[in-house]
Amino acid sequence: MAKIATVLANMFEDVEYTEPAKAFREAGHEVTVIGTEKGATLEGKQKEAQVTTNAAISEVLNDDFDALFIPGGFSPDILREDEKFVKFVKHFAESDKPIFAICHGPQLLITAEVLKDREITGYKSIHVDLKNAGADVKDQEVVVCGGNLVTSRQPDDLPAFIRESLNVLGQ
Amino acid sequence: MAKIATVLANMFEDVEYTEPAKAFREAGHEVTVIGTEKGATLEGKQKEAQVTTNAAISEVLNDDFDALFIPGGFSPDILREDEKFVKFVKHFAESDKPIFAICHGPQLLITAEVLKDREITGYKSIHVDLKNAGADVKDQEVVVCGGNLVTSRQPDDLPAFIRESLNVLGQ
Repeated sequence: MAKIATVLANMFEDVEYTEPAKAFREAGHEVTVIGTEKGATLEGKQKEAQVTTNAAISEVLNDDFDALFIPGGFSPDILREDEKFVKFVKHFAESDKPIFAICHGPQLLITAEVLKDREITGYKSIHVDLKNAGADVKDQEVVVCGGNLVTSRQPDDLPAFIRESLNVLGQ
Repeated sequence: MAKIATVLANMFEDVEYTEPAKAFREAGHEVTVIGTEKGATLEGKQKEAQVTTNAAISEVLNDDFDALFIPGGFSPDILREDEKFVKFVKHFAESDKPIFAICHGPQLLITAEVLKDREITGYKSIHVDLKNAGADVKDQEVVVCGGNLVTSRQPDDLPAFIRESLNVLGQ
């Protein structure tokens, strides 16, 4: 079973955290929510989900985790201001560990500069930024690149996103 | 006196709309707020400012305006999903009309693909996207490029942003 690091700030897209986290846990994986501070309560932008962080980014070790999950909404753009989150994300990409990113989640991958020549999707508004970052952008419900990078566009794509993420974790 | 088109959606950074709009009007310019719909009430992300739109993007004509103002917050990322706003913004850049963009405002310029080799600044989190779009990114309170593109990073920079924008309008 995998230890999944989830990076989160306020204004995340509620269901893009809650549904994959539920599915990952039901499949026996461990989901750790990492924020700027430990024990902080974060709220989704729809105000439907509240999540208490399990750890602060300053205290976690890359090696404690097998995979990375980046929910969307405005959370990723807030997180990428902080160099610690950017370095953390870079580790997963450079170690070829699985990364699951949906909606605006790939913004963190842009800032970590790990998208050159990778096949990816994301929320419509950031397609231009993904292309400019050197990625090969697809407009489809889910894209699996290199067997370890799973990306989707929006809440509608959650069933496909969860299915392919679980598939990568099962291999 | 100039007719200034302001493009706005919910979740704009409150003071990044209210302070420049007030200064532009006090200097005798006309500020028209353009949204997806006419007569809609938009709310800033700090919930301090409510703004009623004067016109819908589908009914305005480029030639009705002399300059463009793009406040920041999450509003620009919402607006750039809509091709009509992107085309509208592209017109100002291609006609060399003044553009004033602060914080996340330049995201609309990225999607309009008008930033190649232009000197610009913006909110810290989008510097990488601006660079990837071909712009020459500066980390300073205000950047004036070509005498008509004025950009700033954040609310702290508002005095410099307003000063330089008014200066461009006065010429």
